Amino acid sequence: MKIYDRSGFPNPSRIRVVLAEKGLETQIEFVTVDLIGAEHKQAPFLAMNPSGKIPLLELDDGTLISESTAITEYFDNLDGNPTLTGKTPREKAMIHMMQKRAETELMDGVDGYFHYATAGLGPLMQPYVSPEWAGRKEWGERQGARAVRGMKYFDGVLKSRTFVAGDTFSMADITVFASLNFAEAAGLAIPEECTALVAWRSKVAELPSVKNRSGQAFLPEDLKRFGL
Amino acid sequence: MKIYDRSGFPNPSRIRVVLAEKGLETQIEFVTVDLIGAEHKQAPFLAMNPSGKIPLLELDDGTLISESTAITEYFDNLDGNPTLTGKTPREKAMIHMMQKRAETELMDGVDGYFHYATAGLGPLMQPYVSPEWAGRKEWGERQGARAVRGMKYFDGVLKSRTFVAGDTFSMADITVFASLNFAEAAGLAIPEECTALVAWRSKVAELPSVKNRSGQAFLPEDLKRFGL
Repeated sequence: MKIYDRSGFPNPSRIRVVLAEKGLETQIEFVTVDLIGAEHKQAPFLAMNPSGKIPLLELDDGTLISESTAITEYFDNLDGNPTLTGKTPREKAMIHMMQKRAETELMDGVDGYFHYATAGLGPLMQPYVSPEWAGRKEWGERQGARAVRGMKYFDGVLKSRTFVAGDTFSMADITVFASLNFAEAAGLAIPEECTALVAWRSKVAELPSVKNRSGQAFLPEDLKRFGL
Repeated sequence: MKIYDRSGFPNPSRIRVVLAEKGLETQIEFVTVDLIGAEHKQAPFLAMNPSGKIPLLELDDGTLISESTAITEYFDNLDGNPTLTGKTPREKAMIHMMQKRAETELMDGVDGYFHYATAGLGPLMQPYVSPEWAGRKEWGERQGARAVRGMKYFDGVLKSRTFVAGDTFSMADITVFASLNFAEAAGLAIPEECTALVAWRSKVAELPSVKNRSGQAFLPEDLKRFGL
């Protein structure tokens, strides 16, 4: 199997943790996509994934699977023991809910802040801004504020739960963890009062699947490495 | 079980089709949320769902499940026969990918068009617009154009496939179908050349789970009914 991605970026890092959790890392050939050069927005890549996003999984029969949740469903179910996406209907529902909430309330806010309120991925990857819209940075800052509200929400959740969607580490934790790394790289700090979130983050960082892959996390060093 | 929603709206209609597919309709008590009055953005509802969205499922033990995909996972797995979310790893991956793609490339575009380029849900439900941003309508129209591109994409998919994610009706079809009803209500037409998409839409409209619930679809009549 092949994965088209860019080591160190937020969504690729989610799948790297999944692979480590499921012991599948050695079965993957990684193909690097030049994100800074906007390779994922050009015709050859768009023919594989019309959404223009990484990571993208190619199965041995040529089937292409995009979207982190879909790739996670695939790997997590291969061994018939879906530890990351849930076994019972209730577990599946809780994990999918919290995962989606992590994307909308946290990851998307960080992403909006990064691309609109900072220099983002550089000149080739600037988002479209209406010529009539002078409020780009202000909009980006509102997205950042939304992400900070998301941090406070997950802090509240983690005051009464071991992991984001219940008693065990799941796809929802992976999304929150990747979002917090992305937030740190983008310059959005976790509020000091979020002690439960900070404690959970330290604990997750020590999990073997995460710790061994810490080089994959999207950290301020990565942005510097790309000259941003 | 209770579902907090508003009959006739796009995401509620997704779950109504799921319930009909799984034969679970009679087990649900529906509680209407006043979307036009922004009830879902006020404290009592936000205490149940911090994301401020419908539909919201309440299990008999008080557990609250939001997000259409999570609610679908719950209902679809109750009988151990997940026809809508997939049985094999490959099916699950394809369905989750196409479902997410339907949300980002189609539903989100329609939603942006509806809320930014039209009168949307009226004065109480106007989205935030930066005081420096005069390009609101232009942005909404770009979202509409994105949704139309999404229609062309799904038309291409349906030229070679019976249903959106493969040979059987799934969660991905439900999302595309609800998005097209929403597009119609918002005034976004399917391009004439999208013959495969139109043929698929007619076929899905005749499925018992959809046909019997056609009153739940979000159609132009619904907007008129709400005085919009």
